[in-house]
Amino acid sequence: MEILVTNDDGWGAQGITVLAKIMTRLGHVTVVAPDGPRSSTSNAISMHTPMKLQRVDISQDDRFTDEEKAQMDVYITNGTPADCVKLALFVLHEEDNSRIDLMVSGINHGSNASINVVYSGTMGACFTGGEHSIRGIGFSIDDFKQPTDLSHFEPYILEITKHLIEQPWPVGMSYNVNAPLGEIKGIKWARQCRGHWCKEIEPRVNEKGETEYWLAGEFVNDEPEAEDTDQWAINNGYISIQPCTVDLTKHDML
Amino acid sequence: MEILVTNDDGWGAQGITVLAKIMTRLGHVTVVAPDGPRSSTSNAISMHTPMKLQRVDISQDDRFTDEEKAQMDVYITNGTPADCVKLALFVLHEEDNSRIDLMVSGINHGSNASINVVYSGTMGACFTGGEHSIRGIGFSIDDFKQPTDLSHFEPYILEITKHLIEQPWPVGMSYNVNAPLGEIKGIKWARQCRGHWCKEIEPRVNEKGETEYWLAGEFVNDEPEAEDTDQWAINNGYISIQPCTVDLTKHDML
Repeated sequence: MEILVTNDDGWGAQGITVLAKIMTRLGHVTVVAPDGPRSSTSNAISMHTPMKLQRVDISQDDRFTDEEKAQMDVYITNGTPADCVKLALFVLHEEDNSRIDLMVSGINHGSNASINVVYSGTMGACFTGGEHSIRGIGFSIDDFKQPTDLSHFEPYILEITKHLIEQPWPVGMSYNVNAPLGEIKGIKWARQCRGHWCKEIEPRVNEKGETEYWLAGEFVNDEPEAEDTDQWAINNGYISIQPCTVDLTKHDML
Repeated sequence: MEILVTNDDGWGAQGITVLAKIMTRLGHVTVVAPDGPRSSTSNAISMHTPMKLQRVDISQDDRFTDEEKAQMDVYITNGTPADCVKLALFVLHEEDNSRIDLMVSGINHGSNASINVVYSGTMGACFTGGEHSIRGIGFSIDDFKQPTDLSHFEPYILEITKHLIEQPWPVGMSYNVNAPLGEIKGIKWARQCRGHWCKEIEPRVNEKGETEYWLAGEFVNDEPEAEDTDQWAINNGYISIQPCTVDLTKHDML
């Protein structure tokens, strides 16, 4: 298999290192990742700025074994996660787009359950894959800290990936996989929980005496009693798997 | 009514001026718009940079009549379209979020039919409205040129808005309204057409001799025969209205 790996936390993040290592067990890995943090960039693409694509020399990188290095090519870009997918498709695989059998994104540092999936650069990359008929899976851990403990999640990532790629895969679909911290009780198929953020803007006065606004806030679960949602799953010790679509039509309103 | 107006082409664009003028006929308008172009920023929000919010003095702006000026407050920000909605909610209407009865976004210069809705900053703003239970309508014209002829679309925008806000409106829903250039034959409810972009990356060598990559490409309609899609509608002289949802779950796969 030819596997594209990307994320929105950048090549410097812990999560993408772990994910790339796991994927070398399934095939050849091409990493195309942002050169720094791009959290919450959704499906943004760089319409107004030129992108660079730079090969990374991992020969001296002791996070990877020699076997893993032999299975990996790594590139970074100033673009967004969605740009990473387009660069992989139209620069690295220009001659044959269909060479990419699978793309994975993450492991994101922070949950992409509930409304967060809409803002997620991790999942934005998968949706761009979906546009181009590439099967995509995004993995996220419900913890913003780095480094964090991912050892409990790692075997599940391998098994979930192997399982999903053997199933029927409608064009345009991606999977949004979220894991809790700590002991994992099992895996649940889940729909997106209704939720929203409150108190999202924090004003601060800068050195010049000007008011600046920073994003902050608290997540509010709008259906805390529902047990079939991704938010319920990760709150209760389960990995959630949400099948997602790039068709945003609300069909029942047509 | 209290109406929030935003866009992704920035306050300097033709489309938002026309949209704000139309909306003053329905109520008081607060514009919160980007200070420059933010095309294809999807639902991106500014996690890593502080935002500014600046009042714009329109008292000498002769694009607006005195009656229109009396009904409008205008702000610009360095943020994205989705940020504009959050700033409106949590800074301008901090005391009472529910004061916003409706938000409209656009008129976007360029179609947001088919897969383009996923990348659209115009619609990203509406989806952020949807997160916060605000009714949102995005308007787009199938033409990138500015200035363009919007006179044929203007009466429809007023009538479509008046019609939609009288209908039941599920939480989290938005409408994506696209218009063709030239004569309008009518209005069609439409689902999102399957489509993708090809040849999306254009390499160019810069002054330093480095290769840079620019987004470009051509849109491909993946179901040109289907007559119930938004792409078919605008290709055949109709305005398309797509109901959209922030629930990205592919429910038939659960």
